[in-house]
Amino acid sequence: MNQLTIIKIGGNVIDNSENLHRFLLDFTALPGDKILVHGGGKIATELGESLGVEAKMVEGRRITDIETLRIVTMVYAGLINKNMVAQLQAKGSNAIGLTGADGNVIQAKKRPVKEIDYGFVGDLDENSVSATTLDNLLKAGLVPVLCAITHDGETQLLNTNADTIASSVAVAMAGLYETRLVYCFEKKGVLKDVNDDGSVVREIKAGEFEGLKADGTVAGGMIPKLHNAFEAIKKGVSAVYIGKADELTELATGTFGTKMLE
Amino acid sequence: MNQLTIIKIGGNVIDNSENLHRFLLDFTALPGDKILVHGGGKIATELGESLGVEAKMVEGRRITDIETLRIVTMVYAGLINKNMVAQLQAKGSNAIGLTGADGNVIQAKKRPVKEIDYGFVGDLDENSVSATTLDNLLKAGLVPVLCAITHDGETQLLNTNADTIASSVAVAMAGLYETRLVYCFEKKGVLKDVNDDGSVVREIKAGEFEGLKADGTVAGGMIPKLHNAFEAIKKGVSAVYIGKADELTELATGTFGTKMLE
Repeated sequence: MNQLTIIKIGGNVIDNSENLHRFLLDFTALPGDKILVHGGGKIATELGESLGVEAKMVEGRRITDIETLRIVTMVYAGLINKNMVAQLQAKGSNAIGLTGADGNVIQAKKRPVKEIDYGFVGDLDENSVSATTLDNLLKAGLVPVLCAITHDGETQLLNTNADTIASSVAVAMAGLYETRLVYCFEKKGVLKDVNDDGSVVREIKAGEFEGLKADGTVAGGMIPKLHNAFEAIKKGVSAVYIGKADELTELATGTFGTKMLE
Repeated sequence: MNQLTIIKIGGNVIDNSENLHRFLLDFTALPGDKILVHGGGKIATELGESLGVEAKMVEGRRITDIETLRIVTMVYAGLINKNMVAQLQAKGSNAIGLTGADGNVIQAKKRPVKEIDYGFVGDLDENSVSATTLDNLLKAGLVPVLCAITHDGETQLLNTNADTIASSVAVAMAGLYETRLVYCFEKKGVLKDVNDDGSVVREIKAGEFEGLKADGTVAGGMIPKLHNAFEAIKKGVSAVYIGKADELTELATGTFGTKMLE
């Protein structure tokens, strides 16, 4: 089985052109087949403000109304995705930018309205992903660059969580490739002491997760992140790495950051 | 050789959701391999106005400054392209939306600054098109949907004429497919009498073009359109059709509209 690395980056890489340039150089240098998944960033918020479209929040959760969907479609699928693809091409990576609608690679479901109507938000899992189409693109020598926009198969585009896209794609591809998933975020990995960048937990096995939650090493926003990581591993992903985007080379080889495995 | 149809639509189809819906249904029903090329439309102008970015004109020619490039990248590659792809998917066409940067399918050159600095505008010909990558996508059962944004291979996205993209792609693909090029515009075809929709010239052979220019049947903006059509035919495209988008089915079979051939 060939190796496939799925890498997710967020706003902290996208919003800084110097960081993005360095990251894309490291990404291009990574050996083997690759898929990049990117989130939004502050450009969408800024465009919304310029257009007088206010961010709508209900009980602390962001709502994607129709105006917001238009903005994220323009910014994520247009401005960010296409500039990233043009930069990757210049660095020698044959990138192809995609939403979930393109080639029907991800068909999500609009989140059902319960207590909160999240608007045009898509939920997905590994069954939402067309592994065959992604595999065809990889076999043609292309590097898929997925933004966080999907569709429902009935003309509706949907705003979708990029972390979930990355893990769903990783699980869907695990039948065809030895698949690794790399989450780049603002910290060097899971930290024993949140104020000490030197206290990275180098490796966490699935069986150790509960204990780390109990002793408080894994807390807050890290709990769902690691929960998703271990779910992906349970479903066939070989390993999940978490750490800093500017250490991608070391992160992907397991030299830096936190590695989660079975 | 398999048959490939390249169809170009403009603002008059894109700006009207009812027209667009009908066009995409007819497009999906067309047999054989297909590539869709679309221009802009008034959404980009409207977004520019909302953001206070004025359309810049020099000697009557539109200039693509950096703010305008941002806007057309968001609108053409994001909003229009992705909504069109989602609609095609819902109609059963496995569409994949692309700029020239995606898969490096079209690498244009920034127009040199002479009397006028057009800004971030790309010029291209058939040598700018990666026929191999487009062929790989078609062979994977995908329907490429190209917007009028290309790149220069050195990170720069470029605003590019959609008519020229369509003819360049048609010529580039003519070595691999029996290629037909269909230009949809606001009229039923080349008209003997510009005020009489019933006066469509059904067929024009390359040798008749000069005579039609001389007697005034082909005049104004139609001259470059037909010139480009006959250039494409000279370079291997089987036939070029010109007519109304809402008559696509008949247009593509040569029942309606004007057919240009060798």
